[in-house]
Amino acid sequence: MIVQQELSDFINTNKNLIQQEIQHRLQQLDVPERLKDSMLYSIQAGGKRMRPILLMASHHAYDHDMEKALSAAAALEMIHTYSLIHDDLPAMDDDDLRRGQPTNHKRYDEATAILAGDALLTFSFEHVAGDPRLTDTQKVQLVRLLSEASGPKGMVAGQILDMEAETKAVTLAELETIHTLKTGELFRFAISSGAYLGGATHEQITHLDKFAHYLGVIFQVQDDILDISGDPGKIGKPVGSDEENEKNTYVKLLGLDGAIEKKKEYVIKAKEALHEAKAETSYLMSLTDYFSNRDY
Amino acid sequence: MIVQQELSDFINTNKNLIQQEIQHRLQQLDVPERLKDSMLYSIQAGGKRMRPILLMASHHAYDHDMEKALSAAAALEMIHTYSLIHDDLPAMDDDDLRRGQPTNHKRYDEATAILAGDALLTFSFEHVAGDPRLTDTQKVQLVRLLSEASGPKGMVAGQILDMEAETKAVTLAELETIHTLKTGELFRFAISSGAYLGGATHEQITHLDKFAHYLGVIFQVQDDILDISGDPGKIGKPVGSDEENEKNTYVKLLGLDGAIEKKKEYVIKAKEALHEAKAETSYLMSLTDYFSNRDY
Repeated sequence: MIVQQELSDFINTNKNLIQQEIQHRLQQLDVPERLKDSMLYSIQAGGKRMRPILLMASHHAYDHDMEKALSAAAALEMIHTYSLIHDDLPAMDDDDLRRGQPTNHKRYDEATAILAGDALLTFSFEHVAGDPRLTDTQKVQLVRLLSEASGPKGMVAGQILDMEAETKAVTLAELETIHTLKTGELFRFAISSGAYLGGATHEQITHLDKFAHYLGVIFQVQDDILDISGDPGKIGKPVGSDEENEKNTYVKLLGLDGAIEKKKEYVIKAKEALHEAKAETSYLMSLTDYFSNRDY
Repeated sequence: MIVQQELSDFINTNKNLIQQEIQHRLQQLDVPERLKDSMLYSIQAGGKRMRPILLMASHHAYDHDMEKALSAAAALEMIHTYSLIHDDLPAMDDDDLRRGQPTNHKRYDEATAILAGDALLTFSFEHVAGDPRLTDTQKVQLVRLLSEASGPKGMVAGQILDMEAETKAVTLAELETIHTLKTGELFRFAISSGAYLGGATHEQITHLDKFAHYLGVIFQVQDDILDISGDPGKIGKPVGSDEENEKNTYVKLLGLDGAIEKKKEYVIKAKEALHEAKAETSYLMSLTDYFSNRDY
């Protein structure tokens, strides 16, 4: 079992590695200043980097040579960042602030924000395909997994369904489908691509796909719980904003107790899947508890 | 020398092949109806498919097995289509019509248009990376070339510079840089990836890169000439609209005669480059004249 300090060290070390990898590549891009600035602005806005950290943890469960997983982790964070930039646009969620800072289109303008998102999305594939640390077969597999997870069958489908759901009540099954696509697919990419690069077998990756699914739900349920019971200073938004915006949440559909119950149940299922994937002694186990208990 | 009829046949045959390749793959996507509809809507809007046809012609100069080049051609057209969808958005060019039909965000809505563009961009990489007709090395090379041509160093850079140029006068050199990035980079991808898949040598591709550059300029100069001297029924917009919108054009900077002169000069240079690339007997030669003399 990994102790708290070890997990913190793992998270911080990898956060720095990922930050350097992205920063380094974007800084050296010979592109128009305004485009580079707007791409870096959103990358530096300082997310928790949970997705790439999951990727590194999944890789670490099978192989301790972390360098090999860095371009996939950086690409994943670029895709996540692009999706936030486009999500915040006036035509989408119309958000002026993210993590307390002006959103990209507020800091620059809408056209620049659209293009910065397009650029990060496109560059994520360039980054993976140009990584000298990977074989051609690995690059192709990463491009396939990443485009499937983030494209029309994955994240983009989730965003369309999420928009459609805004104007109607959804069932628990529909809510789970939306989250599985919108958030879960990138979680699944994180877990499966990290393990793939680490040499996990096909069977192990099948179990990890299940783990990723459970973890995605745990993440979302905790998000919904924090929205009504969290510390506004920590979660970065007022308590109860989901209810005010009439969002479909697990708490709305199951009640607070029901949501906590569901989370506990999924933590058990997630750990069982890790056990089947022979990755039970890894950081993934600790991260499951961390995701389930996080207060921000 | 290829006669007119042969060229028409080549264009029509390949247009159909490309159409089938894209249509088939998008139709069978298991994604939300609204997303698929909006992606197909813009794909079916019926462009001239010039970029993928160039790719096929470039491939044909070195290899007559056209199947191998189809996924790259389809991906290129998807990227071109995504760029038109995003370009037409209210925050960008704010166009209500394209080729006489409502633009994507007019037919659907802005959010759907943003997501349809994102989806086509992402899916273009999925399509190439999943093509069983290609080796892993070929797939990686295509993903690299395509992401470089369309990303922050390529087309997206051109779009940012084009936006910035709207509010100021530009020099001929600046105008050429904008077009080289915004339009030329996808032309270059078409020519170099087609030749690469056809087995052209590194040296041949270097010459073809020059050819693609000249061809891109020829294309743009002719666009600017048609804007003031074309048939409105054929070009699909009123004559003189560039002048009215105070666009920076070759005609504005060089005068009509100067623009015609420049085009002639570049046709000669383009043909010289083809000669160096040992592709002079190909359809590329005829397409150069076709691009230079087109009336729509």
